[in-house]
Order: sequence, then C-alpha cells, then structure tokens
Amino acid sequence: MGAVFTVTRNLRFADCDPAGIAFYPRLLEHVNNVVEDWFAGPLDCSFHELHFVRERGVPTVEIQVKFLRPGALGDAIDWRLTVKTLSRASMTLSIIGAHENGKDMLRAEPTLVHSNFTLDPPRAESFPDDLREKIAAFRAAPSASP
Amino acid sequence: MGAVFTVTRNLRFADCDPAGIAFYPRLLEHVNNVVEDWFAGPLDCSFHELHFVRERGVPTVEIQVKFLRPGALGDAIDWRLTVKTLSRASMTLSIIGAHENGKDMLRAEPTLVHSNFTLDPPRAESFPDDLREKIAAFRAAPSASP
Amino acid sequence: MGAVFTVTRNLRFADCDPAGIAFYPRLLEHVNNVVEDWFAGPLDCSFHELHFVRERGVPTVEIQVKFLRPGALGDAIDWRLTVKTLSRASMTLSIIGAHENGKDMLRAEPTLVHSNFTLDPPRAESFPDDLREKIAAFRAAPSASP
Amino acid sequence: MGAVFTVTRNLRFADCDPAGIAFYPRLLEHVNNVVEDWFAGPLDCSFHELHFVRERGVPTVEIQVKFLRPGALGDAIDWRLTVKTLSRASMTLSIIGAHENGKDMLRAEPTLVHSNFTLDPPRAESFPDDLREKIAAFRAAPSASP
Repeated sequence: MGAVFTVTRNLRFADCDPAGIAFYPRLLEHVNNVVEDWFAGPLDCSFHELHFVRERGVPTVEIQVKFLRPGALGDAIDWRLTVKTLSRASMTLSIIGAHENGKDMLRAEPTLVHSNFTLDPPRAESFPDDLREKIAAFRAAPSASP
Repeated sequence: MGAVFTVTRNLRFADCDPAGIAFYPRLLEHVNNVVEDWFAGPLDCSFHELHFVRERGVPTVEIQVKFLRPGALGDAIDWRLTVKTLSRASMTLSIIGAHENGKDMLRAEPTLVHSNFTLDPPRAESFPDDLREKIAAFRAAPSASP
Repeated sequence: MGAVFTVTRNLRFADCDPAGIAFYPRLLEHVNNVVEDWFAGPLDCSFHELHFVRERGVPTVEIQVKFLRPGALGDAIDWRLTVKTLSRASMTLSIIGAHENGKDMLRAEPTLVHSNFTLDPPRAESFPDDLREKIAAFRAAPSASP
Repeated sequence: MGAVFTVTRNLRFADCDPAGIAFYPRLLEHVNNVVEDWFAGPLDCSFHELHFVRERGVPTVEIQVKFLRPGALGDAIDWRLTVKTLSRASMTLSIIGAHENGKDMLRAEPTLVHSNFTLDPPRAESFPDDLREKIAAFRAAPSASP
C-alpha cells in the first residue's frame, strides 16, 4: 500500500462565483496547490527549488476532472493525493477533494511531465532519482510491470 | 454541418506563471470565458440574464483537457466552440484553443448541466426551448440516435 | 493597546507572474484573505455567515497600498491586521505583510463598509453590536474622540 | 492637452464574487490589463517584448484606489488612462473605469517603476528614450515644475 498525502483547506471568498459556489478554474488552482504542497512537503523539493534552483518544472499536459458536488464559501475540503501511474518523465496523480461529511466534491487526474526549462522549448526529462524515489512511495498500488 | 463559435483572445500577464507560460487554471478561465461569450452572443442569453433574471446556471460537472502546447505571454489564441452532445439538461462542448500558426494549444471537453438555482440545492432542469434550439445549431454532427 | 490579528501564509505558484514575483492583484487577494480569516476567527462571523445568513457584506470602498519589497514564490509572509479607524458603518484597517526577516513586503489600508445586501442597491448600515465590540478590540490606539 | 488611452471591457463571471459584484482584486487585474494594453498599443512595447526581449519590467510600487460604485456581471466598463506624473524611472497613472452611463466605477492611481530584471535584485532604471517619449504624450497636463 502506498502513502497518501493529505491536506485540508477552506474554500474562500476569492474562490466563489456569483452562483455562490466555488468557480471550477479556482478549484483547479486548489488542485495545483495540493501538488505544490506535496512537492514542498514529502517530496522535499519546493516549487521554488524546482523552478529556480533546479530549473525544471512539472507542467500539466492533461487533466480529467469530475465535479461531483458543489463547494460553498467556507467549506473545509479534505484533499487526498496518490500517484496513479509513474513513468520515466511523467506521472498521473489522483487528487480527490472531499467535504467534511466524507462525500467527494471533486476527483481530478492530472498528468504532469517533468521538464527541463533550460532548453527552449522546454523538453521532457527523466525524473531525477531523489524525486522518483519519493514519488514512488505514493503509488496507490505498485503495478506488476512498469 | 453545425455552426462554429469563434473568438480570439490574447494571453495576458495575469494568465502567466513563473515558468513564463500560461498557468493551466487560468487557461480554463479562458475556456469558461468562451462559453460566456457564446451565451452572450449567438445564444442571446448573457450570463447576467441566465443567473440573475432566469435564476438558472450551467455549472461544469466534468471536464477533460489536453494541453498540447504551452501558451506564452501575449499569444493570440483562436478559440472554436462546437457542441459535441446535447441531451435534455446537459451538453458536452468541444472547445479548442489554437495558436496563430494553426497548431492547437489545448482541447477541452466540458460537460455543463442546465440547473435551476431557485431550488436548494440547485437541480438539473431541461434546457428551455429558446436555448435548446440555439445550442443545437452548434452541434458538430447530429448523431443518428439521441 | 489593541489586539493584533496575525496569520502566516506562503506565496504560491498561482500568485506569481512571469517576472517570478507575486502579481500585485494576487497580493490583494491575500489581503482580502487576511480580513476573511479575521472575521472567521476572532470576530466569530465567517464570511459564509456574514453573506448567506446575515445577508450583509463588507465591500472595500477604498484602498491604499505600498509594495515595499517583492514577494517570491514560496516566501512565508507574516500578516498583521489592526483597526486604524472605526466609525458607525465603516472601518479602515492596517494590514502589513512582512518577510521572515521582518522587513515589510507591503502595507495596505483598506476601508470597508458594512452593507445591507437585502436592499437593492446594497446600503451602508451600522455594524451590529456583536461585531462592533469585537472589531474595537483591534483598534491600534483608541482615538481621543470618535 | 495630453492623449487619453481608452479601452472597453466587460466584467466577467470569473471577476464576480458571491455578493454578485466584481471582486476588488479582480478589478485591479483589469487595471493591470489596461496598462498592458497601453504598452502593447500606443507605447509599441508589448509586455512580452518588455519582459522577455528587453528584460525589463514595470512593477507597481504603490496604488491608491477608490471603488465608487460596484461593477456587476456583464457590465461594460470604459477605461481611461492618462499619465499623472512622469519622472526618470517611474510614473504615476490615472486609470478610471466608468459605467456606460458615465458614472465612475473606480479611480486608481498606480505608480510603476521601470526596472532592470537582469540585475538581482531588479533595480530601477531610467525609461529608455523611445518609451519615455510615447509615455509623455499621455501626460494629462504638463506640470509647471517637475
């Protein structure tokens, strides 16, 4: 069984729209923030270090999201991140945001590509060993064959 | 053949991140803006009218996005919207943003549900006839069976 | 001496611009978040309660901001909020965001007006007693005459 | 009499908050967009050129804003930009956003400093002659003494 990264964050006034619920592009900012917190925390490589020291990045090249229930101003959302697939230079994450009653607000599956930003244009590049090892610990269920 | 809604918009400073390219949640704001322009234009029902006069809304319940090429500060993006599927109370759109050289920056397929916001919680409700007829004109290719 | 409300928050990827520093409209979102946290915390009236239960709001009618030093991706910012002036239906706050080394990143003075949103258009309305009393505790230095 | 830069933009769903009106940090994004359009238009130096070709920037170091009337979803706002003061490396702008009925929504006075981003930290630097000349044309009224 893999590790699960969790963090809780409130939906804010700045996240909500005239319908009184969280605006979906802002919910995807929350998704991105969860990834950022995971890097700064257990992966031990803050986005500051990743972008400005290592000159790498992890742009999202694909995402699928189901918005199952609305999120309202002030709601505390429990986020859970696991790694669905990990390959040479990319990974697909499972990021679920749930209400306090345990019901899912959204389920997102972003695919991120580790990229070398010293090249123009940036190019995919294998995860370095330190990151790969820490990322692998969050695989939901190790696949039989890579 | 269905109609295609098109609009061109530049990527702005506010859209771009420290990697110098458009931040993906902000690109999804652009996607939402295209829907908003389509409603205010050919559908003849601005979001102001939809939300505050009709007290309805079209929350996005699902979205799939492929980010094929990065967008940079100042890039003019040509957006094309068509309707992929239209059912009683929901529709799946195809929204493609392309660079001036014709190469796609992103392809998004959001599913929107027409919802009655006078109910608590809001509930899906059939599109009214005036909207349905105008939406149907943008179907990429009428399906053989609904 | 009045109370000081403090909270620490990191600058995020979503806050930063192509120059690699926090984008000033996003810094003002942080300023607004500090106010939101102050209401939900010591004022014991979350924005959810304020807007959806009490049907009131505190729109910002004026703001002056000095951006003294840039904020960079990942910087932990220490925020301090005090009340500069408090009158019948409005208050001017002092909100200072400082770097970990103690040097100020920005100093903002927003003026907020307590407004009744059940009226159209919304109208200024005296702070209710419970809020006024809690707000008054944060006055930097009680003025001799109101 | 100086030139006036004008542009009209709608307030969008993404700009509006649960109170149904434009969120003030988003209005300041509009203010920044007006500056961006002025640079790309009459100043003939897009933010892309300024940041990535010239490696300069114009960070806002101070701003004063009066929010005189709320802006609502869909409102068309007429923006007017003039230059209030222009000195060696900085300028204070007057940016007014008005409703279609001519009544002002907001008045902002941001001060921008032309900065050299090839230095770490970036440092103020005189406006180059081409920019200075074009900026000067927008001075509201030349002051008697600098």
